[in-house]
Amino acid sequence: MKKIKIVIIGYGNVGRGVQKAIAKNQDMELVAIASRSVERVKAEVKDVPVVDVREIAKWQAELQADVAILCGGSKSDLDKQTPEIIKYIPTIDSFDNHSCLPAYYAKIDEAAKKANRPAIISLGWDPGIFSLERVLANAYLVGARAYGFYGLGPKGGLSMGHSDAIRTIKGVKDARQYTHAITEAIDKVRNGENPEFSAGDMHSRECFVVLEDGANPAEIEAQIKSMPGYFAPYKTTVNFVTQEELNEKFKGFPHDGCVVSSSTTGDGNGALIEYRCQWGSNPEATAQVLTAYARALKKFVDEGKCGAFTILDIPASYVSPLSKEDLLAKMM
Amino acid sequence: MKKIKIVIIGYGNVGRGVQKAIAKNQDMELVAIASRSVERVKAEVKDVPVVDVREIAKWQAELQADVAILCGGSKSDLDKQTPEIIKYIPTIDSFDNHSCLPAYYAKIDEAAKKANRPAIISLGWDPGIFSLERVLANAYLVGARAYGFYGLGPKGGLSMGHSDAIRTIKGVKDARQYTHAITEAIDKVRNGENPEFSAGDMHSRECFVVLEDGANPAEIEAQIKSMPGYFAPYKTTVNFVTQEELNEKFKGFPHDGCVVSSSTTGDGNGALIEYRCQWGSNPEATAQVLTAYARALKKFVDEGKCGAFTILDIPASYVSPLSKEDLLAKMM
Repeated sequence: MKKIKIVIIGYGNVGRGVQKAIAKNQDMELVAIASRSVERVKAEVKDVPVVDVREIAKWQAELQADVAILCGGSKSDLDKQTPEIIKYIPTIDSFDNHSCLPAYYAKIDEAAKKANRPAIISLGWDPGIFSLERVLANAYLVGARAYGFYGLGPKGGLSMGHSDAIRTIKGVKDARQYTHAITEAIDKVRNGENPEFSAGDMHSRECFVVLEDGANPAEIEAQIKSMPGYFAPYKTTVNFVTQEELNEKFKGFPHDGCVVSSSTTGDGNGALIEYRCQWGSNPEATAQVLTAYARALKKFVDEGKCGAFTILDIPASYVSPLSKEDLLAKMM
Repeated sequence: MKKIKIVIIGYGNVGRGVQKAIAKNQDMELVAIASRSVERVKAEVKDVPVVDVREIAKWQAELQADVAILCGGSKSDLDKQTPEIIKYIPTIDSFDNHSCLPAYYAKIDEAAKKANRPAIISLGWDPGIFSLERVLANAYLVGARAYGFYGLGPKGGLSMGHSDAIRTIKGVKDARQYTHAITEAIDKVRNGENPEFSAGDMHSRECFVVLEDGANPAEIEAQIKSMPGYFAPYKTTVNFVTQEELNEKFKGFPHDGCVVSSSTTGDGNGALIEYRCQWGSNPEATAQVLTAYARALKKFVDEGKCGAFTILDIPASYVSPLSKEDLLAKMM
């Protein structure tokens, strides 16, 4: 079997996760890691070529990668990077800013069509597999809304975006933010109420903050709680801890969540669909999903497709390592 | 908007459910119900044309239905019916015999290609939406098996097939069989053990049986418990009840179930995906899924596709009533 040749673009937590995920998929092969910080990555990675992302024309001519998995962040990297990379290699990315998604789609669609290549955008668990489940539940349970909840367990789920937001406050040395789903809200959805929620009805936020020397805790707590969008709409708890406590008690990137939809069939028979994910490592979860879709992207290339696609455009059989015969006999 | 014109073939519990589901989908229109028992259906249905399924050449020339949703059973109806109907109309069916599925696929694929039409087979919740979730979980959680459990709640789930099997025993007047998932087995899967189960490790079976006058309960209980495939591999409980009790306490067609997969990402971080459905009416659940895929089938027709397809071949966007713009802006 000819393996799918993959290059990883960007080597942070997601990039490391993709590297490990590729090793688990026998039909895939990591041909290089591309970074802007070649020396930093080379110090960590010994068994894979590390190349400078800016020299893509040169190394791609030699490596002939089938797929580039972009592991940079949505904020600054992807918007500029994806339209560049697609000129040379079909791309997969995890662009996750929901409100900017239509504009990002349009931008990548144009660049991909110009390059005559396919690009799959916004993969991961949300947007990504949760988007897929929202659309399916909404089609099966006609008219039912699909609600997303995050941080179901007692410890909640670590939100990198909210942790970063706290760290931008002057006087904050380090911080981690755990999101908690409000159980009563999930129960309302399960009961078929199709409720109208504001953001604060569904989740609360718990912050663990390390202060710089001399910072004023009361002031910082007030600043966090009043941050528009991030914390202002939510019941927020702020706990001050030492760096040692933060490192020990709040390590790793655990997250979990669910998509819940409820309505009725026929003349009022209850119907409930609930999709739940639980991840010991959030960036590795994103990485495994990105990696699985390398298969679909390669098939799109073989079919001559070009333009931007989302998870909603991709049949499950394109994502599976199994043959059509095995899918029919073992998985249907 | 031009509505999708649907004809229902077969008017039992699933057919009635499809009729109600079409009424909820504003882009669909029921143009006729076709049956072998026209008079029986006409007595029940007043506002929709009822036609004789054997006269399909005649009525389809007039009705020009886009899609036929076949609501007959897998045992006797579909195997013969689908290859006939596809000669005139693209078909959707709920063929649910897992072990015969590859042969059924091959048969319908051949007939559909000959007719130059698309057919979507084996929709419902299992096979159907559970198949889809098995394939996706297996791709995201590399190497994880996907386990299906049925009857999660205290009452369990009603199995029509097992109820029918009991009713074939001489001396049995009526019966209903409830399947119960074994909680400890679900917990083993959730814990990431990827266990090797035999059928009896995952489910138990609870039977409520009405005897004919003079039948011997001990003999019938022994016959039920020793039925190969249906009951022999399972811990089975048999309760004898009166017809009145059965009608009162065990009415309706409730069922529920889940697909659970667990493995690790990276160097051993836990990962769990769980998909759960709960249905007040099992046949209406099947009906709503069948109906949603009428949209996908119509798109396949418009694209000139022919042959047999399963849920694994169909992107979620084809099943949704929403426009591409709405999907990007509201559902991703």
